[in-house]
Amino acid sequence: MDEFALIKRILAEFRDPSGDGHPAWLGLGPGDDAAVTTPPPGHELASSIDSFLADVHFPGQAAPELIGYRCMMASLSDLAAMAATPAWALAALCLPEGREEWAVRLSRGMAEAARAARVQLVGGNLAAGPVALTLSVHGWAPSGSLLARKGARLGDAICVSGPLGGAARALKSLDLANSIPGQLSDLERCYWRPQPPFELSAELRRHANAGIDVSDGLLQDLNHLCMASGVGAQLHGGAIPLAPGANLEDALSGSDDYALAFTTGKGALRRRGVVIGEIVAGKGLQLDGKPIDPEGFQHF
Amino acid sequence: MDEFALIKRILAEFRDPSGDGHPAWLGLGPGDDAAVTTPPPGHELASSIDSFLADVHFPGQAAPELIGYRCMMASLSDLAAMAATPAWALAALCLPEGREEWAVRLSRGMAEAARAARVQLVGGNLAAGPVALTLSVHGWAPSGSLLARKGARLGDAICVSGPLGGAARALKSLDLANSIPGQLSDLERCYWRPQPPFELSAELRRHANAGIDVSDGLLQDLNHLCMASGVGAQLHGGAIPLAPGANLEDALSGSDDYALAFTTGKGALRRRGVVIGEIVAGKGLQLDGKPIDPEGFQHF
Repeated sequence: MDEFALIKRILAEFRDPSGDGHPAWLGLGPGDDAAVTTPPPGHELASSIDSFLADVHFPGQAAPELIGYRCMMASLSDLAAMAATPAWALAALCLPEGREEWAVRLSRGMAEAARAARVQLVGGNLAAGPVALTLSVHGWAPSGSLLARKGARLGDAICVSGPLGGAARALKSLDLANSIPGQLSDLERCYWRPQPPFELSAELRRHANAGIDVSDGLLQDLNHLCMASGVGAQLHGGAIPLAPGANLEDALSGSDDYALAFTTGKGALRRRGVVIGEIVAGKGLQLDGKPIDPEGFQHF
Repeated sequence: MDEFALIKRILAEFRDPSGDGHPAWLGLGPGDDAAVTTPPPGHELASSIDSFLADVHFPGQAAPELIGYRCMMASLSDLAAMAATPAWALAALCLPEGREEWAVRLSRGMAEAARAARVQLVGGNLAAGPVALTLSVHGWAPSGSLLARKGARLGDAICVSGPLGGAARALKSLDLANSIPGQLSDLERCYWRPQPPFELSAELRRHANAGIDVSDGLLQDLNHLCMASGVGAQLHGGAIPLAPGANLEDALSGSDDYALAFTTGKGALRRRGVVIGEIVAGKGLQLDGKPIDPEGFQHF
């Protein structure tokens, strides 16, 4: 298949029937040497890159629409963790010859997620090789308001944005390669339809002190936050919200949830998440008063 | 090897001994969920993504320092083509277990190119998989001044920024897997040390009407520029500057040069490049008065 014909089909999937295809900040979309954008004045840009490989980051035999949706949302989760408003993405796709239909269906899933998060695909790259998708995602927020991992303060409540462990439970107990788009069970949705809480961003910017997305497991990610902030964490096992079917171990060490963990001193924001513990002096994590070794998914 | 230990070693390669490691526009570099940057007020952002795969885009057995340098410069070439000032990059690296030393040497080469182009690595991603590097590169320019493929006008001179065909000749006649860093011949340098003409950007913004980087071969890339601008091109074979050892076919259809082609009506800018033809009415390319089929490297 002709490279340029495939690019045209992929871009067609990203067309937005609602007509919001060319926001004012978009100077030049796909098709030139580079995309041209202008962040709103007085804003700063949050930018992240993630790669997704077949049978490492997703079941390679699964429906490509599901894969595309999940990869896009998983990438955008990094922006939600910074309390940035998602805006645009660049996509680099490697695929072997003969996988053109697969690529179009993958793009359909990516585009669905992009529309849901109001994200524009502004450019990309196609290369021949083993299946891999790399997404570079970008969003913005008023200058000085973005949330980082550092910043947690002694006495802060530790909150999570929603139930944990569902994606890990789905990975352990289901054959996700057989999931059927449009007919997902609740547990399948935990894995395939991550929903980073973009709607919390405005409040997080005002009231949260630190944040991280829970993608490698609550303990591991929370430990990153604590190390960056120079503090420790006391967790209450009974308070950790479990996805239906998930157990505490799934929630503590399971990966792929893409919920947010954040710390806050403010009562208002506590009510927007589930309080699972508090920031304490020292270092390391404790669960119900006992030290616990942060464990989670390591790529090597 | 521990993922986080490898990331630390990679980032150490990017440290800039000149001390320019934290420019005012950089809010937050590697190590959080996303990088934070602020383009200068009144500027727009140019952004591009490219993937590089072993034995597709570079000889997999070559010295990783050379590979890294070349991949970074090839990516930044898209910014030079838009006349943007390079500023920052995100890097996503896939590599199999056991290639940690290779990854550090690759990073050394990338960092050398980044320093030469005054580019900061602000974030990245590591994944376990077949060797692949994806770079998302970003630069800026005063709003409204970036160069696109469209914009070429009838009567414009077509210029290239330097000799062509050297990289293609090197690919055809040398075993580039055996190139030794620090001991490159002139022809090897054509392939391994692409030098996008960043120094032309300020003048291109003022005086050029359209631009593209010559990465897939002069004819194919110039044809993209002509199609985007709705014009044709008349080329003078004898005027096309050849790299030492390259012939006209290398220059017309050979890939990987990363020179710029641009069109301009202005005498001053013509002297900064080599005039190889002019923009004419109609469509398609002509070489010395005869139609010529644009040919070049297609990835599929």
